[in-house]
Amino acid sequence: PEKAVILAAGFGTRLGTITEETPKGLLKVAGREIIYRSMKILQELGVKEFIIITNRKYEDKFRKFVEENNFKARIVINEYPERGNGYSLYLAKSIVNEKFLLLMSDHIYGKAFLQEAVKGEGLIVDRNPRYVNIEEATKVKIRNNQVEDIGKHLKEFHGVDTGFFILTPDIFRIIEGILSDRDVLELSEIVKRAKLRVTFVDGLFWTDVDVPEDIKKAKDLIVKTSVKGVGDGFISRYLNRKISTRVSSLLVDYITPNQITVITFLLGIFSALLNFISVPLAGIMYQISSILDGVDGEIARASMKTSRFGGYVDSILDRYVDFTFLLLLAYVTIKEPIWWAIVTIAIFGSVMVSYSTECYRAVYGKSIYEEIPTMRYLIGKRDERAFLTMLFCLIGEIKALFVLLAVLTNLRVALTVWLVWKKHKVNSP
Amino acid sequence: PEKAVILAAGFGTRLGTITEETPKGLLKVAGREIIYRSMKILQELGVKEFIIITNRKYEDKFRKFVEENNFKARIVINEYPERGNGYSLYLAKSIVNEKFLLLMSDHIYGKAFLQEAVKGEGLIVDRNPRYVNIEEATKVKIRNNQVEDIGKHLKEFHGVDTGFFILTPDIFRIIEGILSDRDVLELSEIVKRAKLRVTFVDGLFWTDVDVPEDIKKAKDLIVKTSVKGVGDGFISRYLNRKISTRVSSLLVDYITPNQITVITFLLGIFSALLNFISVPLAGIMYQISSILDGVDGEIARASMKTSRFGGYVDSILDRYVDFTFLLLLAYVTIKEPIWWAIVTIAIFGSVMVSYSTECYRAVYGKSIYEEIPTMRYLIGKRDERAFLTMLFCLIGEIKALFVLLAVLTNLRVALTVWLVWKKHKVNSP
Ligand SMILES: [Mg+2]
Ligand SMILES: [Mg+2]
Repeated sequence: PEKAVILAAGFGTRLGTITEETPKGLLKVAGREIIYRSMKILQELGVKEFIIITNRKYEDKFRKFVEENNFKARIVINEYPERGNGYSLYLAKSIVNEKFLLLMSDHIYGKAFLQEAVKGEGLIVDRNPRYVNIEEATKVKIRNNQVEDIGKHLKEFHGVDTGFFILTPDIFRIIEGILSDRDVLELSEIVKRAKLRVTFVDGLFWTDVDVPEDIKKAKDLIVKTSVKGVGDGFISRYLNRKISTRVSSLLVDYITPNQITVITFLLGIFSALLNFISVPLAGIMYQISSILDGVDGEIARASMKTSRFGGYVDSILDRYVDFTFLLLLAYVTIKEPIWWAIVTIAIFGSVMVSYSTECYRAVYGKSIYEEIPTMRYLIGKRDERAFLTMLFCLIGEIKALFVLLAVLTNLRVALTVWLVWKKHKVNSP
Repeated sequence: PEKAVILAAGFGTRLGTITEETPKGLLKVAGREIIYRSMKILQELGVKEFIIITNRKYEDKFRKFVEENNFKARIVINEYPERGNGYSLYLAKSIVNEKFLLLMSDHIYGKAFLQEAVKGEGLIVDRNPRYVNIEEATKVKIRNNQVEDIGKHLKEFHGVDTGFFILTPDIFRIIEGILSDRDVLELSEIVKRAKLRVTFVDGLFWTDVDVPEDIKKAKDLIVKTSVKGVGDGFISRYLNRKISTRVSSLLVDYITPNQITVITFLLGIFSALLNFISVPLAGIMYQISSILDGVDGEIARASMKTSRFGGYVDSILDRYVDFTFLLLLAYVTIKEPIWWAIVTIAIFGSVMVSYSTECYRAVYGKSIYEEIPTMRYLIGKRDERAFLTMLFCLIGEIKALFVLLAVLTNLRVALTVWLVWKKHKVNSP
C-alpha cells in the first residue's frame, strides 16, 4: 500500500509529564523519534504518503518533525480527541481511497516485523509477543481467520493486537454505521464489528510505549538488535559487545555516532601515550578503547544514523589507533634493530588483516564474513589483538607479544587469501 | 539481434604458413583467438547464438574452440569455399529468420566499436579508420545513406567497410537473385546490389588481420588500449606504462596474468634481498619490479582474462613487496630506535595509502579516482614511492627517504579522508 495512516491524537497520559510538551510518537527512543523508525522503514518498503492524525496541541510539533525529516506527510487535526481513535481513523476517509496501512504512533516496529506486516491483510496479530507486557496487551480471539473478540481483559485468546493494520476503504462504511448512534469510538470496536481478517506475524520485534519503563526497555532492545555481529571476533562476541551495548544504551539519546568515533579515537591515542607512564595501564586503557570501538556503530544503527562516511573514517582511525599504540609500546620497551624489525612485521600484519578483508569487499562487493563463513573462526581480528595486547602488557612480556602478533596476523592473511582462492578459484574466468 | 553469423571459410593465404594448421579467426592475438574477442563481447551485448561458417578443413578446430569456451555456436560447413563469402553467408539462410549480425572472423573489433555497431543498421562504415591500412581497405561510396559503390580500388569514397553488418533475412532473396546466374559471389557484390543502408561508427578500435605484420600491430594496439589509466600515478603515466606495455606485448601470447603476478612478486622480494648486497642495485631492481607490476593487469585485460581473484591477490602481494623492501632496507642501514619508529611510520603510511582507497571502494562501491578526480593529482601512490625509493637508494640518503615517505604517505591519507568528506558530507544522512 502506498498510504499509511498514523494515529497520534491521544495525549499519552500514563507517561506523565513527558508528554506535556511532546506527543508520544515524537519521544526519542534510542536516538530517534518513535514514529521516525516506522515511517523511515515504511518509506523504504514503498509507502509514498503518510497521514498523521493528531490533536491541535501537537500540530506544530508534527509539522516541524515532518519538515525536518523530509517525509511526505499530511497532518490531519482531530478537534475532538476524546471521541476515540476510531473517530481519528474516520477523519482519513476523504484522503484514502484504496488499500492503506494503519499504525499507532506509540508503537515501535522493527524492520523485520514491518517487512512481513506490509504483506498482510486486516489486523496483524502476534501469537508469540516477546517484547510486550501480556497483561497490558490487547488480546485477540480468532475464528476462521477473523477477529471474533478483542480486548485487554479477554481470558481466552489466540494472540495479541500489534496495532498494525492493512485496511480497505470499506472500513469507513463500518465506522459510519457505528458512529450513527454514538459519539465515542475505539478501534477495537471497529475491529470486532468488521470481523477483520487476521494475519499472523509471530515473535518479531515490536513493542509499545505506555509507561516510562517501556522507554528504557525499548531502547535497550533496539541497541541490542542493532549489533551487526557477523564479522565480530571472539572477544567482541563474548566480552566487548556485552559492555559496549550497555554504554550505547546510556549514550544513544545524547551523542552522535561521529562524536563517539572521535572520542574513542582520542581515547585510543591517549592509551598509546600512556605507554610512556605505565605499560600495564596503557594496555588496560587500550582494551577499554577497543570495547568502546563498537559503540559508534551500535549507536549509528540503533538511531538509524548510519553513514558510509562515518564507517569509512572509523575504519581508518582504528588503524591509526592500533598503529600508534604498538609503535609507542615498542618505542618505550625495545632497542635492538632485529626486534624493531619484528615490531614492524607485527604492525604491518595488523593492518594487513583489515586490508585483506576490505580488499575483498572492494573487489567482490560483499562482506568476506558472509561469503566465507569459515573466516569468522580465524583469530587475529582487532578485538582479539587488543585483548592479547592488554594481557601481554599486564604480564610485561612485550617481545613475546610482538612475535605473537607478527606470526598471527600474517598467518591470518595467508589463510584469508587461501580461503578466498578456495571459494573463487572455479567461479572466476 | 540475438544471432550472429561469422564468416570463416577462407583459407587466409596471405598469412602464409601460419594458417596451414589454424584458421585466421583462431589465431591468437594478445593472448586470445581473434574471434573469441568478438564473440565474448557480443555475447555480453545480447547475442545468444553464433553461426560459424567455415570449411571442412577447420571444422574440428572450431568445434573444439566453441566447446572449450562454452559458446553457443553452430558450425556450418561450406563445402565450396571457392564460391566466395557471399555463398558462405547464403548457407545461413535456413538458420536465421530475423534480424542478425554478420561479421568477419579475421577482424578484431574493440568493445567500444561493437557497442555502437550493434545498434546500427546495414553496413557499418568508418569515416575515420585509424587502425587499418587505407590502401588495403575496402572503400565505400555512399548516397542517400545507402551504399552506392564498394571496392578496394575506389578513388572516390566516403568511408571504409568494417566487415560488420546488421542484416535482415531479405538479404537472402538478393543473394538468390545473384546466385541464379553465377557460382562465385563476394560480399561486396551483395552489398552493392542490395544498396545496403549504412551506419557510421567513426574512429573506434577495429582492425583486420591480412598479413603477418598486422598481427604484431593489432597486438600492440590491444595491449595499449587495455591500460586502465584512471588510477595511475605520475610515474606510471609517464614512465612505467611506456615500458610495461612493451613487455606486455612481448609476453601476452606466452604467459598468463597470474604467472606474471607471481614473477613480479618474486622479483620484488629479490630486490628486497639485494639490500644485503647493494642498496643502489636493490633500488634499481625495485623500480624494475614496479614497472613490471602493471604487466599482469595489462595482459589480463588485453587477453580478456581478468579475474577478481587475480586482482585481489595482486593487491595483497604488492603490499608485501613494498613492506619487505622497506623493512630490509631499514634493517641494513638503520640502528637507532627513533629512526626505526620513523621507518615504521613510513611502512604503515605506505599501506594506508592503499587502504584508504580500497576502503573507499569497499564502502562506496566505486573507484575513488572516478568519484573524486582530484585524487589523481595526489602524490604518494606506489609507482611514485618506488621511484623515489630508487632515487634515494642511488644517492644513499636512506634516513631522508624514510622521513619523506612517512610524511608524504600519512599526509596523503589525511588529504584523502578530507576529500572524501568534502565529496560525501552533504549526501550522507
Ligand atoms: Mg568504531
Ligand atoms: Mg601487478
